Amino acid sequence: MKIDLSSIIGIALGFGMIGLGLILAAGGDMGLLMALYINQPASFALTVGGSIGAVFMSTPLERVQRLAKVLMRYAFTDSKNTAYSELIAEMTDYATEARRNGVLALDARTEEIEDSFIKTGIQLAVDGTAPDKIEEILSQEKASMEQRHEDNQGVLLKWGEMAPAYGMIGTLVGLVAMLANMSDPSTIGPSMAVALITTMYGSMVANMICIPLASKLQARTAEEVTRKQMIIDAILSIQNGDNPRTVEQKLLTYVEPTLREQLAAAQSDK
Amino acid sequence: MKIDLSSIIGIALGFGMIGLGLILAAGGDMGLLMALYINQPASFALTVGGSIGAVFMSTPLERVQRLAKVLMRYAFTDSKNTAYSELIAEMTDYATEARRNGVLALDARTEEIEDSFIKTGIQLAVDGTAPDKIEEILSQEKASMEQRHEDNQGVLLKWGEMAPAYGMIGTLVGLVAMLANMSDPSTIGPSMAVALITTMYGSMVANMICIPLASKLQARTAEEVTRKQMIIDAILSIQNGDNPRTVEQKLLTYVEPTLREQLAAAQSDK
Amino acid sequence: MKIDLSSIIGIALGFGMIGLGLILAAGGDMGLLMALYINQPASFALTVGGSIGAVFMSTPLERVQRLAKVLMRYAFTDSKNTAYSELIAEMTDYATEARRNGVLALDARTEEIEDSFIKTGIQLAVDGTAPDKIEEILSQEKASMEQRHEDNQGVLLKWGEMAPAYGMIGTLVGLVAMLANMSDPSTIGPSMAVALITTMYGSMVANMICIPLASKLQARTAEEVTRKQMIIDAILSIQNGDNPRTVEQKLLTYVEPTLREQLAAAQSDK
Amino acid sequence: MKIDLSSIIGIALGFGMIGLGLILAAGGDMGLLMALYINQPASFALTVGGSIGAVFMSTPLERVQRLAKVLMRYAFTDSKNTAYSELIAEMTDYATEARRNGVLALDARTEEIEDSFIKTGIQLAVDGTAPDKIEEILSQEKASMEQRHEDNQGVLLKWGEMAPAYGMIGTLVGLVAMLANMSDPSTIGPSMAVALITTMYGSMVANMICIPLASKLQARTAEEVTRKQMIIDAILSIQNGDNPRTVEQKLLTYVEPTLREQLAAAQSDK
Amino acid sequence: MKIDLSSIIGIALGFGMIGLGLILAAGGDMGLLMALYINQPASFALTVGGSIGAVFMSTPLERVQRLAKVLMRYAFTDSKNTAYSELIAEMTDYATEARRNGVLALDARTEEIEDSFIKTGIQLAVDGTAPDKIEEILSQEKASMEQRHEDNQGVLLKWGEMAPAYGMIGTLVGLVAMLANMSDPSTIGPSMAVALITTMYGSMVANMICIPLASKLQARTAEEVTRKQMIIDAILSIQNGDNPRTVEQKLLTYVEPTLREQLAAAQSDK
Repeated sequence: MKIDLSSIIGIALGFGMIGLGLILAAGGDMGLLMALYINQPASFALTVGGSIGAVFMSTPLERVQRLAKVLMRYAFTDSKNTAYSELIAEMTDYATEARRNGVLALDARTEEIEDSFIKTGIQLAVDGTAPDKIEEILSQEKASMEQRHEDNQGVLLKWGEMAPAYGMIGTLVGLVAMLANMSDPSTIGPSMAVALITTMYGSMVANMICIPLASKLQARTAEEVTRKQMIIDAILSIQNGDNPRTVEQKLLTYVEPTLREQLAAAQSDK
Repeated sequence: MKIDLSSIIGIALGFGMIGLGLILAAGGDMGLLMALYINQPASFALTVGGSIGAVFMSTPLERVQRLAKVLMRYAFTDSKNTAYSELIAEMTDYATEARRNGVLALDARTEEIEDSFIKTGIQLAVDGTAPDKIEEILSQEKASMEQRHEDNQGVLLKWGEMAPAYGMIGTLVGLVAMLANMSDPSTIGPSMAVALITTMYGSMVANMICIPLASKLQARTAEEVTRKQMIIDAILSIQNGDNPRTVEQKLLTYVEPTLREQLAAAQSDK
Repeated sequence: MKIDLSSIIGIALGFGMIGLGLILAAGGDMGLLMALYINQPASFALTVGGSIGAVFMSTPLERVQRLAKVLMRYAFTDSKNTAYSELIAEMTDYATEARRNGVLALDARTEEIEDSFIKTGIQLAVDGTAPDKIEEILSQEKASMEQRHEDNQGVLLKWGEMAPAYGMIGTLVGLVAMLANMSDPSTIGPSMAVALITTMYGSMVANMICIPLASKLQARTAEEVTRKQMIIDAILSIQNGDNPRTVEQKLLTYVEPTLREQLAAAQSDK
Repeated sequence: MKIDLSSIIGIALGFGMIGLGLILAAGGDMGLLMALYINQPASFALTVGGSIGAVFMSTPLERVQRLAKVLMRYAFTDSKNTAYSELIAEMTDYATEARRNGVLALDARTEEIEDSFIKTGIQLAVDGTAPDKIEEILSQEKASMEQRHEDNQGVLLKWGEMAPAYGMIGTLVGLVAMLANMSDPSTIGPSMAVALITTMYGSMVANMICIPLASKLQARTAEEVTRKQMIIDAILSIQNGDNPRTVEQKLLTYVEPTLREQLAAAQSDK
Repeated sequence: MKIDLSSIIGIALGFGMIGLGLILAAGGDMGLLMALYINQPASFALTVGGSIGAVFMSTPLERVQRLAKVLMRYAFTDSKNTAYSELIAEMTDYATEARRNGVLALDARTEEIEDSFIKTGIQLAVDGTAPDKIEEILSQEKASMEQRHEDNQGVLLKWGEMAPAYGMIGTLVGLVAMLANMSDPSTIGPSMAVALITTMYGSMVANMICIPLASKLQARTAEEVTRKQMIIDAILSIQNGDNPRTVEQKLLTYVEPTLREQLAAAQSDK
């Protein structure tokens, strides 16, 4: 598993720039920075805690639990293109085997298949299941996977929706307290600053964490759906006894032209 | 019926954190807290009452009435996964019976079936109704259920849309009164505080009650739709005389891989 | 025709609470209330007149004219459930007649049918039109009805979108005039109050009139679409010579379980 | 071609009320009105020019050019209902001809047909093209037309999205300049007034021009799509040798019940 | 390749007007303009850098990389209509060849075909692939292309969503620092000006760069999808041995009536 480069760049840049902004706003005084922006436990509790509470109210418990597992996998994903070229090579390999020695010959190889989706598909083909049944079962599994991933992204998106809302509620709470007691004008500015901190926290949670993570998960899901669709196409084609070259060509329609030419070139080198 | 844990966590966290925020804003003075934020009957009436009025204007009466019933059920829902494994066991059991003694043998068991959707489906299969008719009738019932649930969620979402709007109208009403009479500057702050309270109430109703509850109901509906679809698939498969193992495998494509492996393991232990 | 209870509750509550808010904001002084909030003809003209102008620009004239007729009908609608149970009884009655004396026997009864949609459908069945033609014609009429209703709701939704926009334009116009001439500080407050009134009017038109009415119309349209779909199903089933009991059962899948049980119980009492 | 009444009412009311608002805000002083609200060339250039620039960046040139032509046609549209009744009469006329003298008899009449869509359809029918081919070709042309119209509306909607954005950018530019130089308090008000003018212009462009015009175009497109669908239905029915009465009845399902009765009555008068 | 005129006009107008606004706001003093609006490296870093970071967090790396390539192509696109007429001429030419000498005669011409999509299609037709297979393969490639383009636009739209969010976070950071330290009133204005600059930058990035570019890419993708669909239609028609005139007529249904008449006229001149 390769670490996902764009996440590293993104976190460094996104958090670094905001950090820089905080340092400059505090005039480089780290103590002031801490006091003004970070050492605000009540604002933090209200915005982060309150919005997490709203997420729990919004969502069945399993989805929240599953999210942690999903996020771990996201941070260490292989690059998509490598995976695609490996997948095409693997499926073409099975097609060659099936063409030479019959589909049943794949039975001996199911043990070594790591991906459980490919394994299920090959086994169904080996068992002689009707093509439309194979497609039905694998498509249902693909759709279930997509639904589960959307549920997981939904938890993040709900947090990203709730955090600014709780931030705004916190700011309103602070403003009301401040406005009700304006006897000492010198406290108005600092009180309003504290009130605004919750809006700032809410916006940061949403735009620095929730929305970017949900978008990345969405992109990963789309890749996984495409991958599963490629596998379904390949297995149906293999079962149909298609030429390995035909199988490969079908799968290549899913990838972008430049990669397609590279793969076609690599293929002809063999 | 098990109590839904995530709702309890959510309510405790969501309301607790806002409560903490109010206490801190009032400097721990409970009398002040009450006076400032809670003992505002006019703001409360305008925001909550007014927005509930808009909901009644927006929605046929039956939907509002039905919501109470739906909300009761939501707070005490079984965990989804348990329900799924039980459902799969139950349907596999019927498949075994039908395989051994014919579909008609299920007639004797329809009495004991609690779920009216399963009951209807089994009865249709026992009556020898054509598969496409069974699918049509059960799918129509599933679709009607989904529509009714969406209508119920719609009541909450409409309230969640109207509450901030009435909160804002209330704030504008208050601001206009304040701005028209600024002869005594010392009253400006408190007047504006009171004006802002309606916006705060509106945002709280929407983000602490309506949107989280509607989201939870949405998640529950999605689970129920999946459950009904699994039942439809199982009954068509049972009527078709499929192997109980095939029925089980089909239903397992709906659940997530980890649960699937647990269930498969439990099955092989038997 | 029964008066729609939820509209009465909604209007009483929605307008009553805002009225209460206005009275409290004016300190119970009705003269001040009128002067501050209601006797603002210019703001009223700009917000209401201007946004109605934008609606006319947005929409063909017929749609605006048709809306009045549609709104009258909305305020005096029968409760949905009663209508459903009556419809099921009526269609089952025709099915019984057709089963006993043949579909042609229904010809004698078409005169007494009030609902023109049912009448057309029965006549088509009596004329021996092919089932798929009947479905095509009735579905087309259902779709046209849905489209026309959506157009009507669109007029209200457009007004609900335009009123706050014109309110905001009015506020900007007022603010610019006020800011350009701040020589006498004592006029700033009242001038700003007047400027804000247009925003308040815009929000009231949208949230107290347009959005609730459009939502209610939407709900009524959905009921009407379901009703027409039930009629189509029933007529096709009647033409097909189905058992009246089958016709009834099909229609019952459209209604909610509790009502279904009541109807089934009432049926078995007969 | 009749002038579209609702556009005239809309423009008179929408612009008139805003004009009234401006006059009242300026205290009836036309010189002040011009100076304050209209004689602001820089604000006008930035909001209108800038947002038009963004539209050009957003959109291929042809779409912008085509919009002018489309807008001209919109301002002088016939009323929809008249057009529908004329269309039904025309198509029923062709059906009568085809029924009496065969479809080929329509060949002689294609010369006199003004509408190129009807002409193409009749010619295809006369040429003996297969019904599904006719439907495919005419539906493709209908879809292309719909797509082009949506592209045109898209230009207006993009301008309606960009104008308030450029208005806000202009206001921020003005506010920054004002805030950076607050040495003379007496200039703050007027400077802020000037800054707000761009927001006002942006909102006016969007809500008084772009959104209403795009909505009207959308309504016109929907009418045109319905019209073309009616023509497709009629031509397929004519080619099929249907009774002229059947053709008329089919087309009548597209129009609203009241108009339908008028037309049916007019028909029986003949 | 012709340079896209509307982009040039758009950039000149959009950036020129904003530039004019800046110059006027700074009173024509370029030093002040630089100091106030442009020489703000911290605000620039926070808004642009931070939002780009969020884009990297949101998106797999390949999509970000691919965007540069896509943007280059966008700036130098041929006008759509020219391309359409050339395409129709080219496809009609192949149809004539196939009609005269058989589909196999096209084999000799595949070498000279530049467009790889047409090439693939012609080759499939020459190889005698079944029509539904050809349609499946080409449609899959069209869909993959559309998906990739949407992914690219998604990067721009995400940046356009994130830039104003980071701008607002920056403004909140600045406001909090300003409010916490209001001892010297003369610094309040300039501090707030600096705080607002990030909101201004965020809005500029979104509305002057991201949204217009994404819209233009969207329009280009729609044209490309239509083009590919026209090619699919043409190749299936050519393989079917259709008359070149029929092929041309089919393709002409995709273009607008005025262009269609020009092309038809040009055709009859030949």
